[in-house]
Amino acid sequence: MIEKLNLTMLTDFYELTMANGYFESDMAEDIAYFDLFFRQIPDGGGYAIMAGLEQVINYLDNLEFSEEDIAYLEKKGIFREEFLDYLRNFHFVCDVWAVPEGTPIFPGEPIVTVRGPVMQAQFVETMLLLQINHQSLIATKANRIVRAAGGRPVMEFGTRRAHGASAAVYGARAAYIGGCSGTACAIADRDYGVTALGTMAHSWVQMYPNEYEAFRKYAEIYPDGCTLLVDTYNVLKSGVPAAIRVFDELQPKSKGIRIDSGDVAYLTKKARKMLDEAGHEDCQIVVSNSLDEYIIQDIIVEGACIDSFGVGERLITSKSEPVFGGVYKLSALEKDGEMIPKIKISENIEKITNPGFKTVYRLFDRDTNKAIADVITLDGEPVPEGDGYEIFDPRAVWKRKKLYNFYAKNLREPIFEKGKCVYQIPSIDAVKEHCKEQISTLWEETLRFENPQTYYVDLSPALWQMKNQLIEEHNKF
Amino acid sequence: MIEKLNLTMLTDFYELTMANGYFESDMAEDIAYFDLFFRQIPDGGGYAIMAGLEQVINYLDNLEFSEEDIAYLEKKGIFREEFLDYLRNFHFVCDVWAVPEGTPIFPGEPIVTVRGPVMQAQFVETMLLLQINHQSLIATKANRIVRAAGGRPVMEFGTRRAHGASAAVYGARAAYIGGCSGTACAIADRDYGVTALGTMAHSWVQMYPNEYEAFRKYAEIYPDGCTLLVDTYNVLKSGVPAAIRVFDELQPKSKGIRIDSGDVAYLTKKARKMLDEAGHEDCQIVVSNSLDEYIIQDIIVEGACIDSFGVGERLITSKSEPVFGGVYKLSALEKDGEMIPKIKISENIEKITNPGFKTVYRLFDRDTNKAIADVITLDGEPVPEGDGYEIFDPRAVWKRKKLYNFYAKNLREPIFEKGKCVYQIPSIDAVKEHCKEQISTLWEETLRFENPQTYYVDLSPALWQMKNQLIEEHNKF
Repeated sequence: MIEKLNLTMLTDFYELTMANGYFESDMAEDIAYFDLFFRQIPDGGGYAIMAGLEQVINYLDNLEFSEEDIAYLEKKGIFREEFLDYLRNFHFVCDVWAVPEGTPIFPGEPIVTVRGPVMQAQFVETMLLLQINHQSLIATKANRIVRAAGGRPVMEFGTRRAHGASAAVYGARAAYIGGCSGTACAIADRDYGVTALGTMAHSWVQMYPNEYEAFRKYAEIYPDGCTLLVDTYNVLKSGVPAAIRVFDELQPKSKGIRIDSGDVAYLTKKARKMLDEAGHEDCQIVVSNSLDEYIIQDIIVEGACIDSFGVGERLITSKSEPVFGGVYKLSALEKDGEMIPKIKISENIEKITNPGFKTVYRLFDRDTNKAIADVITLDGEPVPEGDGYEIFDPRAVWKRKKLYNFYAKNLREPIFEKGKCVYQIPSIDAVKEHCKEQISTLWEETLRFENPQTYYVDLSPALWQMKNQLIEEHNKF
Repeated sequence: MIEKLNLTMLTDFYELTMANGYFESDMAEDIAYFDLFFRQIPDGGGYAIMAGLEQVINYLDNLEFSEEDIAYLEKKGIFREEFLDYLRNFHFVCDVWAVPEGTPIFPGEPIVTVRGPVMQAQFVETMLLLQINHQSLIATKANRIVRAAGGRPVMEFGTRRAHGASAAVYGARAAYIGGCSGTACAIADRDYGVTALGTMAHSWVQMYPNEYEAFRKYAEIYPDGCTLLVDTYNVLKSGVPAAIRVFDELQPKSKGIRIDSGDVAYLTKKARKMLDEAGHEDCQIVVSNSLDEYIIQDIIVEGACIDSFGVGERLITSKSEPVFGGVYKLSALEKDGEMIPKIKISENIEKITNPGFKTVYRLFDRDTNKAIADVITLDGEPVPEGDGYEIFDPRAVWKRKKLYNFYAKNLREPIFEKGKCVYQIPSIDAVKEHCKEQISTLWEETLRFENPQTYYVDLSPALWQMKNQLIEEHNKF
């Protein structure tokens, strides 16, 4: 949907002033490396889920400056005609590497790297961050909620509370990647293959003289997908009895009730009993009232009888933590064929960046196929291997550990080569499957909602040395 | 931008199953009234700001079912050809009333009402909620932040952390309505006239051997808008001195520094002193590090020397409260020319809806022009007027108050008549001005951030009576 639009101007204005600045200072063609990474996992979780890459690819593949864009920039009165001409003839020529969607990711890892002429590699910052931050946020939240539901399907129901149209559509997409079974949002179904379902609002019930008539009419029209909303007036006194009467009379093929308010633990237990006693053991109970992973966990513990969940605003806005703090930082320059690593120093240790052109390996145990640790290495370093390979915690370097009997997998794939997409975008179902599979390689300790074990993200000795050297050089000033 | 797209399928799927249900049951042309209202002001504030109406109008004005939509619906296998034919020939014929953008709004008020054939009036629910919820959320948050800044300009800087493209663009638009001076987002400038500004990222500084060279180059290219980012290495030791050297050497017309990290209260005081001592009293200091209304208020109290603010993620996501809980509820039906008011009962008193076709008046004091109270009345009731007009609190009916020397203003305007837009959409600057003006009619007690006085929203006696009668009728069951 959005991709068909020209979104080139969906950028922080400073990307334009900087691009022009590089153009005016003859640095435009200097080769720069930028890493996209994040610093903190939302909700204090043990891992995040990579998402949004497909939209990044579509954006980069269609990146051009239209006459409308040029006219707008001309009007600003700060750009020379030569620069506008450059934009008119703009062709994206960068190389891009990225971690595929659905992969568990951890703080500090270069989940995307862009290499190319600095004015181009810099320019794409805003949109890359926007897409990856948004969808990774929602995929990560969805995954927490889906895990809380313990195998019961979770539907994404948040369209009306999303932050605008793209938040609704790509939020539904990201939620599906994170493990949701479907969405209420029809356009996400039409355009992204995220199955959409939906039955009735309270207004349907209110349009009829009573619940029985409203339900009966609905069951006549939709005998194959008949989920009745039973809480317009009173769930146990009128809603469920009316539903049972209609199920008795019409025997629809698929029966369900939905409860959207009240104490769902209590109500679902009572409703389940009423339905079973009436012989409708096959009637599904759907619940959908301001849910999130914490409430779902609680009501399951309370013994609520629920077959599936609809989760709205707290998923589509990631209410408890609506910001995914991805950043995009310069990590290296190429000047006259020489690689110059770059670092951003900060008072805050965690804000100091990892310099150089890097990649990430995940090390798996050969026996269990469980993920042991990730290692960020410099480009060209050998793949971690061998018995006795030593990793250490960069925040506590005295913590060292020798690894045996493991294999390493490079987490990143080449996405663009010289501006040409070389990546086969997988289907959304393949991404979802990949996500499920990869999460199954994480230890329980990492999966925990509260205070999970911090997963090891190691730096290779060469990278560690380069980083410390650059910090020391800066300290000399 | 988004409006040019066909977003008809950006809807909860149940709007489609219900529309088809009404079609199949010959109720399609029954006339229904739906109210859009919200229940709680975000962040415990005293008022919210209406926003998003322009996008609602664009949506309704272009509402049609494309062949792509029809093909998608056909594939779902639950709709008959007659219904799809109806959609093919769909023309929006409803009446719509709404509170103009930029107006302060309060819980329970029908800020939008749609009247028309039930299948149409119901169908538009999702998109109306999506647009109004999103933009009202951001406009309300922006207004809080702008008020905290006490007259200093606030720029919206959140594009990269927005929930997708529309969240960035319409978020920038809503923030401008709420009082922001501009945005970092270029497309919001191009398409919505929200002034975009921006200078440099840390990477610009990192690209050069040192800050002095980076700043000097920038000042040469942009002598008219030269804001230098001084915190790449060390604000006071290297950043500010380098900026001063460049200001001395090049004397740019407009001088500024931006600080994006660290203890900004301390740093801005020190930086101000250094700049002043160097004769750059006209150099502006801009601050932009995870700000919101609370932090801004605090650092101003601490005596920070700040001329303007850039506010990012906490504004564009409304981080402290990312959900605006607007709902869309059936309030009446017309059957055979007779008006049948409808109510939704709930265990939770505040969730019981106001029945009937209604409007809202705001009562202003004739001497001070301050807003005294809002009154929701039934359509056709006389305008509140006269000395001794009695209002009461519907949550505490014994609290009564007689009003003298006031005038009433209907808050709503007709937007569509029989599907035709009859509303002249004001310019965004007019909306922003309207917002500022209308907020100035609220008492200080309502403007307070914490524990504000609850503004009176009264029901007319006729509406109150109707509501109670319907509740009693329901209780008989």
